[in-house]
Amino acid sequence: MTSGAGNGLRISLPRLRARLDALSEIGAIDGGGNARLALTDEDRRGRDLVVGWMADLGLRIEVDEIGNVVGTWPPERTEAPVMTGSHIDTVATGGRFDGTLGVLAGLEVIETVITSDVELARPLAVAFFTDEEGSRFAPDMLGSLVFAGGMPLEDALAIRAIDGAVVGEELMRIGYAGPQPCPARPPHAYVELHIEQGPVLEAEGVAIGVVTGVQGISWTEVVITGQSNHAGTTPMALRHDAGYAAAAIASFVRGLATEMGPPQVATVGRIELHPNLVNVVAARASLVVDLRNTDEEQLAASERRLSAFCEELAAREGVSITSRALARFAPVEFDDRVIDLVEEIARSRGCSTMRMPSGAGHDAQMLARVCPAGMVFVPSVRGISHNPAELTEDADLESGANVLLHVLLRLVADAR
Amino acid sequence: MTSGAGNGLRISLPRLRARLDALSEIGAIDGGGNARLALTDEDRRGRDLVVGWMADLGLRIEVDEIGNVVGTWPPERTEAPVMTGSHIDTVATGGRFDGTLGVLAGLEVIETVITSDVELARPLAVAFFTDEEGSRFAPDMLGSLVFAGGMPLEDALAIRAIDGAVVGEELMRIGYAGPQPCPARPPHAYVELHIEQGPVLEAEGVAIGVVTGVQGISWTEVVITGQSNHAGTTPMALRHDAGYAAAAIASFVRGLATEMGPPQVATVGRIELHPNLVNVVAARASLVVDLRNTDEEQLAASERRLSAFCEELAAREGVSITSRALARFAPVEFDDRVIDLVEEIARSRGCSTMRMPSGAGHDAQMLARVCPAGMVFVPSVRGISHNPAELTEDADLESGANVLLHVLLRLVADAR
Repeated sequence: MTSGAGNGLRISLPRLRARLDALSEIGAIDGGGNARLALTDEDRRGRDLVVGWMADLGLRIEVDEIGNVVGTWPPERTEAPVMTGSHIDTVATGGRFDGTLGVLAGLEVIETVITSDVELARPLAVAFFTDEEGSRFAPDMLGSLVFAGGMPLEDALAIRAIDGAVVGEELMRIGYAGPQPCPARPPHAYVELHIEQGPVLEAEGVAIGVVTGVQGISWTEVVITGQSNHAGTTPMALRHDAGYAAAAIASFVRGLATEMGPPQVATVGRIELHPNLVNVVAARASLVVDLRNTDEEQLAASERRLSAFCEELAAREGVSITSRALARFAPVEFDDRVIDLVEEIARSRGCSTMRMPSGAGHDAQMLARVCPAGMVFVPSVRGISHNPAELTEDADLESGANVLLHVLLRLVADAR
Repeated sequence: MTSGAGNGLRISLPRLRARLDALSEIGAIDGGGNARLALTDEDRRGRDLVVGWMADLGLRIEVDEIGNVVGTWPPERTEAPVMTGSHIDTVATGGRFDGTLGVLAGLEVIETVITSDVELARPLAVAFFTDEEGSRFAPDMLGSLVFAGGMPLEDALAIRAIDGAVVGEELMRIGYAGPQPCPARPPHAYVELHIEQGPVLEAEGVAIGVVTGVQGISWTEVVITGQSNHAGTTPMALRHDAGYAAAAIASFVRGLATEMGPPQVATVGRIELHPNLVNVVAARASLVVDLRNTDEEQLAASERRLSAFCEELAAREGVSITSRALARFAPVEFDDRVIDLVEEIARSRGCSTMRMPSGAGHDAQMLARVCPAGMVFVPSVRGISHNPAELTEDADLESGANVLLHVLLRLVADAR
C-alpha cells in the first residue's frame, strides 16, 4: 500500500482510548483529572510511558536540549518529517485530553500507518513539547518556543519556577536533558490535533474545528492606589476608592469587548483588594486584564482604550493607576494550504466543519514560525477545560484522529 | 469634694497619651497603626493591658459571657452605674484612636475622679465591648449587641469568623469567656467619646461633635455562582462570569449612592474571586455591600434597588446570585437629655459644637436600646480612619476627655 492510497484507513479508537486511560493514571487527581506539572516526577513518569510506547513501535527517539521528545517513523529516514504532536504536561487541576490527545493521536496515526504497511514519501514524526502549560515555568509553550528558535536555550534553561526549581536542573534530574540541538531543524510541516477547550463547536453542533490561527494575547497588570477610609463616615464625593476603580475597570473591559464584538474577548479573572474589609474603602487594588483578538490592530486598539479609560478614571476618582505588560503575543495565522487541507479532508470524511481561531495558545503557533502549520479542533463538552471534568466524546476523539491521519498522509504524499 | 463641685476638674493629657501610646504598641503595624482583630492574640494582649490598668486603679472588674469587660468605681458600689466606654479591637489596618480613645479616656476620667477624691452619688463604670469592628466576626458591635439583649448569647458564641474560628472557642482560648450574664443589667446612662472618623468637624472648624444618632447600616453578602471557563476560548456571549458580575454590582452601588445623594453612602470594600486566575473566567465571587443612611426609608429603598439590580444581572449574565444580611441596624436616635447635656457642657467649657449624626456604627447605639445614651465626637485629621494614619490632635483629645468627664459627673450628680 502507498501513501496515496488508504482513504479507507482508520485509526483504532480502542488503542487510542487505552493509551489515554493509561497516561491519565499518572498524576491522577480527584474528579478524573491530572496534575503533571512540567518537569515534576509525575511529568517524568508520563514521559517515560510515552517514550516506552514510541520504542515499542520501533520509532527513532530523539530528545533535545530543552527536553522535547520526537519519535520518527521509519526510524532510518532522516529527511525533514511531517510532524504532529502537542504536550503531556498539565495545569495543577488539568483534564485528561488537553495536549495528551494530540500526542497519543499522533502515536496512534503512526501505529495505524505501521500496521497497514503504508509506504511513506517522507517520514512521519510525533513530538511532545516541554512545559506547554506554563503553570510551573513561565512563559507557556516554552519547549516549542525554544525548538523554533524563539528563545535562546541558555535563557530557557535558567528559568526559575514558582516553586524555586530551575528548568535546566529539573531536566537533568528527570533525565530529559537531551543531546539534540535547539533551535531544531524545522519539520516539513506541522499539524496538531487538540480539544477546543471552549464551547463553540458544541454550541454550533460541529464535529471538526478548522483552526485558522491563534488569537493575540495581551495581559496587563493594573495596580490602583487610593486612600483607605471609613465606609460609613466618608462622603462619596471625598473618596479615593481603589476597590471601586478596580470594579469600574472590570466593567469597562466587558463593555469594550461587547462593543468591539467577536473575536475580541476581554476578561478580568483576578482581582485583589487591600485591606479587603467590609467597612473600609479599599486603599489598593490589583487586577489583570486579559485581552485577545485575532487582529493585531484591533488588539492594540483595545489596549489603547483600556489605557485611556484608566487615565480618565484615575483623574475622576483621585487615585493613581499604574500598569505593566505581563504577556504580549501577536496573533498567529496558520498556513492557508494546511487550513484548506484540514477542511477538505474533514468534509470528505463526512464531518461538519467550521473555521475558527484558537482562543488559547498552542505549540502549533511556535512551529508556525518555522514551517507550514495548522491545527484540528474537536469539541469539548460544555467547553470545560483546565478542569478535571474536561471531556471529549469517543466519537469526536475518533473523528479528530482520523482527520489528523489523512491530513498527515496527504502532506506526506504531496511532499513527493 | 462632692460630685456637684469640680467644674474646674480636668483630666491629665499626659496620662491619657501615655496609655494611648502603650496600647498602640500591641499589634503595631507599619505607619503607626494597629492590627488587633477581635479575639486574636493581639486583642488578648490589649485586653490584658487595659485590665491591668483597671486593677491598678482598684476598679471592680467584671467580664461577661461575650467577653465585654466593665471596670466600676467605687468597687463596692452595686447600683446601676453611669457608664462610658468603647472598644479596643481594630480593623486589620486600624489607627490608634478608633475605640481606644473612648476606653482610655473613660479610664482617665475615673482616675481623675479617684485622685480628686470626688464623692459619687452613683458608681462610674468604663467598659470595652467585644468585636465592635466586625472585621473578623460579623456583625460588628457584637459585644454591645449581646450586652443589650439584641442577640441571644448562644447565637453570638456560635458565629464563625472569616478565618474559620468560632467566637465561643476564641473567647475561651484567650481567657475572656467571663461569668457575668448577658443580657446585662442596664446602666443608668451611657456616654461614649469617639473620634469622628470623618472629615466634617475639621472641615467646619468645630471642636466637639454633639452626636444626635447613628446612621442605619445594611451589610449584604452577595455570592455569585457562574461557570469557570477559559478566558481565551469562551466567546463573550457564552460567558457566565461571576467576576464580571461582582464588578458590575460594585459599580452599581457607587452609582446608586451618587444618585441618591448624601447622607446615603455605599461601599464594596471586600471582593473575592475564585479561582482568581488571570486566564480563567471566575466561577464564583463573593462581595459585601455596605449601605448606610440616617433615614430608614431611604436605607430600605437602597436595599430594594440593590436587590432588583442583582436579580436583573443574574438573568442577564446567566449566573446565580444569592444574598444574605450580615448586619442590619435601623438608624438610632440618642436621648434628647443626653444630647442637650453634651452640648451644654461643651459650650460651657468654651468649645465650638455642632450637632451631627454618626456615619459609623458605635457601641453607644446598642446601649441606647436599654438606657439613655449619647456620644461626644472629636475631629479626625483629614477625616482619615481605619487607616494607620488616623490622627486626632492632642488639644482635641484633651477637650473631648474633659467634656466626657463633666458630662459623666453631671449624669452621676443628677441621679441623686
